[in-house]
Amino acid sequence: MCAAPRLWHASPAMIDIPRADPRAGLSCEVGGHLPQKPGTFEVLAREGDARAGRLWTAHGPIDTPCFMPVGTYGAVKGLDPDDLREVGSQIILGNSYHLGHRPGPERVAGLGGLHRMMAWDRPILTDSGGFQVFSLRGLQKLDDAGVAYQTHFDGSRHRMTPESVLRTQAALGSDICMILDHCPPGDADAALMRAAVDRSTRWARQAIALRPEILAPTQLCFGIVQGGTDLALRRAHLAELAALPFDGLALGGLSVGEPIPAMHATLAEIAPQMPAERPRYVMGIGTPFDLLAAVRAGVDMFDCVMPSRHARNGQMFTFAGRLNIRQSRFRDDSTPIDPDCACRACRRHSRAYLRHLHEQNDPLYGRLATIHNLFFFHQWVGALRAAIRQHRFGEVDRLFSSIIAQFYQREPQVTSKPRREPVPAAPPG
Amino acid sequence: MCAAPRLWHASPAMIDIPRADPRAGLSCEVGGHLPQKPGTFEVLAREGDARAGRLWTAHGPIDTPCFMPVGTYGAVKGLDPDDLREVGSQIILGNSYHLGHRPGPERVAGLGGLHRMMAWDRPILTDSGGFQVFSLRGLQKLDDAGVAYQTHFDGSRHRMTPESVLRTQAALGSDICMILDHCPPGDADAALMRAAVDRSTRWARQAIALRPEILAPTQLCFGIVQGGTDLALRRAHLAELAALPFDGLALGGLSVGEPIPAMHATLAEIAPQMPAERPRYVMGIGTPFDLLAAVRAGVDMFDCVMPSRHARNGQMFTFAGRLNIRQSRFRDDSTPIDPDCACRACRRHSRAYLRHLHEQNDPLYGRLATIHNLFFFHQWVGALRAAIRQHRFGEVDRLFSSIIAQFYQREPQVTSKPRREPVPAAPPG
Repeated sequence: MCAAPRLWHASPAMIDIPRADPRAGLSCEVGGHLPQKPGTFEVLAREGDARAGRLWTAHGPIDTPCFMPVGTYGAVKGLDPDDLREVGSQIILGNSYHLGHRPGPERVAGLGGLHRMMAWDRPILTDSGGFQVFSLRGLQKLDDAGVAYQTHFDGSRHRMTPESVLRTQAALGSDICMILDHCPPGDADAALMRAAVDRSTRWARQAIALRPEILAPTQLCFGIVQGGTDLALRRAHLAELAALPFDGLALGGLSVGEPIPAMHATLAEIAPQMPAERPRYVMGIGTPFDLLAAVRAGVDMFDCVMPSRHARNGQMFTFAGRLNIRQSRFRDDSTPIDPDCACRACRRHSRAYLRHLHEQNDPLYGRLATIHNLFFFHQWVGALRAAIRQHRFGEVDRLFSSIIAQFYQREPQVTSKPRREPVPAAPPG
Repeated sequence: MCAAPRLWHASPAMIDIPRADPRAGLSCEVGGHLPQKPGTFEVLAREGDARAGRLWTAHGPIDTPCFMPVGTYGAVKGLDPDDLREVGSQIILGNSYHLGHRPGPERVAGLGGLHRMMAWDRPILTDSGGFQVFSLRGLQKLDDAGVAYQTHFDGSRHRMTPESVLRTQAALGSDICMILDHCPPGDADAALMRAAVDRSTRWARQAIALRPEILAPTQLCFGIVQGGTDLALRRAHLAELAALPFDGLALGGLSVGEPIPAMHATLAEIAPQMPAERPRYVMGIGTPFDLLAAVRAGVDMFDCVMPSRHARNGQMFTFAGRLNIRQSRFRDDSTPIDPDCACRACRRHSRAYLRHLHEQNDPLYGRLATIHNLFFFHQWVGALRAAIRQHRFGEVDRLFSSIIAQFYQREPQVTSKPRREPVPAAPPG
């Protein structure tokens, strides 16, 4: 926290972030627009490759660049819909692997769909569940038509196909559905990477063919580009997927164990080549520094478990770096986590009290900490979005690159870690 | 839940409960009164022994009869101050034993006191911690001056005296402080009961003598009447304590393992004999049926961990009896816990979703369930309070006695259980 004084001078508060009006029916920041057809994507401002826009879904618009909190099981752990609105979430992520088994797609549909079940009336994007199934090492068997697997819940056997993941997401009622892709680990060899790309293309074509029959017309469908950090392979796969009529394209297979510089190089090279008229989504990243790099490369959407998971582990994000609330030096600290932060935790509570709640295993700790970290991520991406709209992104990028890098790039690991919801290595029993 | 239709006809919604205005600075229901000196107690309505009143503290008034949720460690588990306001809590309980060791009275004082630490600006009552120390079987040694004990936290050795508990509560800044008493188990023999009463009287006199020096003039101090279910002993102890200038008197040593009929008989006999011009508090009870019996006997204040602890275990209170949300029959149940309930959980979420959150160990479950149960308890006591004010308590008592008894009296146990925050039997290590 030593460089704090320097950082307060460069706070994102310098950039006026238009706030969403929580009383308005829509989640977006800028009003006065008639609702648009789901899938409509408007680029409102550009600066270099970076862009600010708006994507319309059946549950309203989202302002891009946009950070999406992860609500694996139909809740962002410990937060209710009001908390999510309060921190500024416009869209959240659900996971088809988890929800597909607990409580199950038919059950969610019977409860009126995922939105109704969790009382969240803003957009929801659902992952296909493929990432989770491919992380079940030794418990999955791949073939050309799909992947057979045993769940980590109870070891029961199931099969996932390009069709089944769409059917699950149709039942959940997601606004944005992701197709099944083959996501190899970051250290996979070239042959596996190549095979994964070919398989993912075949599955993508199947998904496009099946979509009209399975998904509602208001449900968007995104393709996923693989290819690891092999730029030629990435470009080839991108060209294949860009030719298909997806509503948006995602970069998968990043932050899965590859070296961080290679991840950033891939982002910088590939993202600007993705179709400009459609939203671009990078799955499962990342640190505040990763988000800056992705926005610079023209990415519009991100999701990451980092803010919520780190919060539960005591790690708090601030613009002066992370702090670990479990440290004993906070025992008598009556200041908030971040004196400049306007979140519920910082407006009211001291570091000492949060530390005390953490020590006592009080679930209030997890809620307040998650609220703080999500607020930080939304503020950060909101500041970048506002900067692009004001044609000040270059200035903000220069100002923050060194500072954010100082605090968030030099993390102990040199290879990226999976930032999406993982599953345990072996099923119970 | 079979008798539900009958019960909806007798819902407390029939009785108009004036709601606190959350925007007002004061917590009480009826405005238009100038703030009164802490300790001022007004009885506003009487019907039989039952009475409705208002007690003023340094942090505003509470409307009596009043239910106080238990926030052992400086939080009602998982709830933040807005949640407590939303469910209708006017005052909460803290525990000096727990807070005295974690995080410690000096630390709480350094953070501005318990109110500031937890950002709760309404009244707080703190227990002396004596009940917890006497529950440390085998780890405490009693003498005339106090009790030596080892904590359940780390086995460290400490001493609790009539003076030390007041000093702890002075540091916490509680609005209502409880004195140290000797609370024997419900099955203690007559000699021990007698000795406990004598010791409690001596300690009460010491507390009264020490109070001006230790407590702030705005901190109220309540005495505690012991004597188990021996009515003669209770009367004798009551007479001794009533002679001392406490701001209010409590009945301790109930719901500590004695037979439930004996507890109710003691309540019915002793409560009406407590000084009428001062608030009456029964510690650590109870079920909705117990509360009705206590209000009928003229008790003004109650605290109990039952609503919050039962919530975490899946037990939900409704006016048609308890339901256990873990049961598989709720798996596809799209109705709220209680269709007539206006709490945050019932307004928005289904039994199926709450069950799903419970299955996934999502902390949002605990928060929503605790909100529901506390809302139920506050609605129930609020309905009794409104009935007394409208001189309809007799009518309501008759209407509900049979129904509430049907659902809440015939519980499996025949002896009462400790309803205050217990401590484990042995320290770690």
